[in-house]
Amino acid sequence: MVEILEKPAQEQQNLREKLENVFRNMFEDGCQAVEQLDDQKFTEHTWTRENGVWINGQSSDNTLYIDRALHQGSVFEKVGVNYVAIEGLLPPGMTFQESGALGTSEADQMIDKKGTPFFATGSSFVIHPRNPMAPTAHANYRYFQIGDGTQPEYWWFGGGADLTPAYLFEEDAVHFHQIHKEVCDKYDQSYYPRFKKNCDQYFHIAHRGESRGVGGIFFDHLKGSNLEELLAFVTDCTKALVPAYIPLVEKRKDMPFTEHNKQWQRVVRGRYVEFILTSDRGLRFGLASGMVTPKSVFNCMPAHAGWEYDDQPAPNSAEAMLREVLKTPREWV
Amino acid sequence: MVEILEKPAQEQQNLREKLENVFRNMFEDGCQAVEQLDDQKFTEHTWTRENGVWINGQSSDNTLYIDRALHQGSVFEKVGVNYVAIEGLLPPGMTFQESGALGTSEADQMIDKKGTPFFATGSSFVIHPRNPMAPTAHANYRYFQIGDGTQPEYWWFGGGADLTPAYLFEEDAVHFHQIHKEVCDKYDQSYYPRFKKNCDQYFHIAHRGESRGVGGIFFDHLKGSNLEELLAFVTDCTKALVPAYIPLVEKRKDMPFTEHNKQWQRVVRGRYVEFILTSDRGLRFGLASGMVTPKSVFNCMPAHAGWEYDDQPAPNSAEAMLREVLKTPREWV
Repeated sequence: MVEILEKPAQEQQNLREKLENVFRNMFEDGCQAVEQLDDQKFTEHTWTRENGVWINGQSSDNTLYIDRALHQGSVFEKVGVNYVAIEGLLPPGMTFQESGALGTSEADQMIDKKGTPFFATGSSFVIHPRNPMAPTAHANYRYFQIGDGTQPEYWWFGGGADLTPAYLFEEDAVHFHQIHKEVCDKYDQSYYPRFKKNCDQYFHIAHRGESRGVGGIFFDHLKGSNLEELLAFVTDCTKALVPAYIPLVEKRKDMPFTEHNKQWQRVVRGRYVEFILTSDRGLRFGLASGMVTPKSVFNCMPAHAGWEYDDQPAPNSAEAMLREVLKTPREWV
Repeated sequence: MVEILEKPAQEQQNLREKLENVFRNMFEDGCQAVEQLDDQKFTEHTWTRENGVWINGQSSDNTLYIDRALHQGSVFEKVGVNYVAIEGLLPPGMTFQESGALGTSEADQMIDKKGTPFFATGSSFVIHPRNPMAPTAHANYRYFQIGDGTQPEYWWFGGGADLTPAYLFEEDAVHFHQIHKEVCDKYDQSYYPRFKKNCDQYFHIAHRGESRGVGGIFFDHLKGSNLEELLAFVTDCTKALVPAYIPLVEKRKDMPFTEHNKQWQRVVRGRYVEFILTSDRGLRFGLASGMVTPKSVFNCMPAHAGWEYDDQPAPNSAEAMLREVLKTPREWV
């Protein structure tokens, strides 16, 4: 389990606050956009730890992270969100690479067998709408730092956003990719093609030979000599979630659907669960590091998922078209 | 992927047929007992492989395994069953231990980097009833052999049976354990205490700090100088599934239940899915070895599973009593 450290020196403190604010704003703005569409409000849990025991209580100076959950709303079936700003010691001997998380070999050379000081801040959203015509969205951006992070190798950004429809409306996939491409292109023309490809590769369910959804962008170990410039890019990414995704929900939330559509949505969510539990680095890191409670790690799960022995859709159906796209990722923009 | 070998020498053939019959009988008798309670029948799929491609077709001399699925019956929501009898080559470099499956270090020393000949036969059941008062049951018994298996280190039995209630009726747990204890005690007084403890240890969901259910028996690497004697024990285990489990379904299948009960059943099945996807050796081995198709590997999944952010039951409720037992496994007999 992570140990919590004393406050760092003042020169690091200003940078940390700046980083934290970016992800805190993503957290607040995203939650607000979700609540504006729904008749339900989020319930919030703030977590601190004292003597190795997690305590769920009021927000305070000792707050390590906050999560919010919305369950069985009018528009959203389940939404899991969290915001983390934590400094501590990684468990002795645990490396970022071994944990399956986010690390670099340079960073792993910093790992101290007695436990390695780190700082991490980020925010994540997993949004599962009720209507099967409205896609699920995931977005997660974060900053990691080992030690005091004074060299670029010892800090990096990671994250991305991706879309998982149960029924594919091509214009929705195009819109989601277009917004993210515009953010990328503003900073580096190579970003979108690289990060789109990363996303297809990362959100691949190997045992099914299928993508989880229609992708988006994904990057990791994003580092360099200029932290401010990369932070500007990541800030714009965090701001893209609402315009890239919320209009799709607005367009689809009142479309008619059948029990057959709802059952197919559960099958697609079954695949989502398979990906999370077999392949997701965030889940593995979350459980292995003890950085957050297990219930917060599982905040990403859908309300319902389903499995059938034979889930091959009828030829030429809407479901078959989706499955075909999942087997052969497309270029959307 | 597994490569299929030519038929072995006749002296091995008789033993193989004897082993196969034990698991084939388990398969047929268990399916018959399920069908007798339900208005639905199983659909059957027989699988062969030609030139590396799986073919689902009629049973023939080339059949490698059979699976049966029952979906949305009157009593059973989903039942997945399979019977395997396969000889082949493990993928080059793959060891049983690395695969997370069933192996021993002695057996792994036999592994040939060019692919290792093996023979495996077994049968597995995962039975999810509709009524939340009726428990889910899992039973799986199998024989593995590396090379020609002429030394005891190169063959072993594995398997077990365990019960996963959503609502705990203590008499049901006692009955299930009692039947399995009687089988064990007939052969070796040390078996039940050892195999009951193994079962509690194996079916433990580490990230939740909870058992999957109320346990049963579980053994692996069961080997020795007398294959016939161990086969007699395993045969009796395979015959225990029906009397240990089916009477519990008969007793619970018509009990009244509410939507609240059904939702709790989905939450319990969510934990079941978490165990299978993060911890189950059979699933990992099945996917890594390519010994069966992915759809057969996932035949064990429930029809529906659910997640809630806060799934802590109300104090003193039936749900809270179950969770308490899952956190602290009991001795049932």
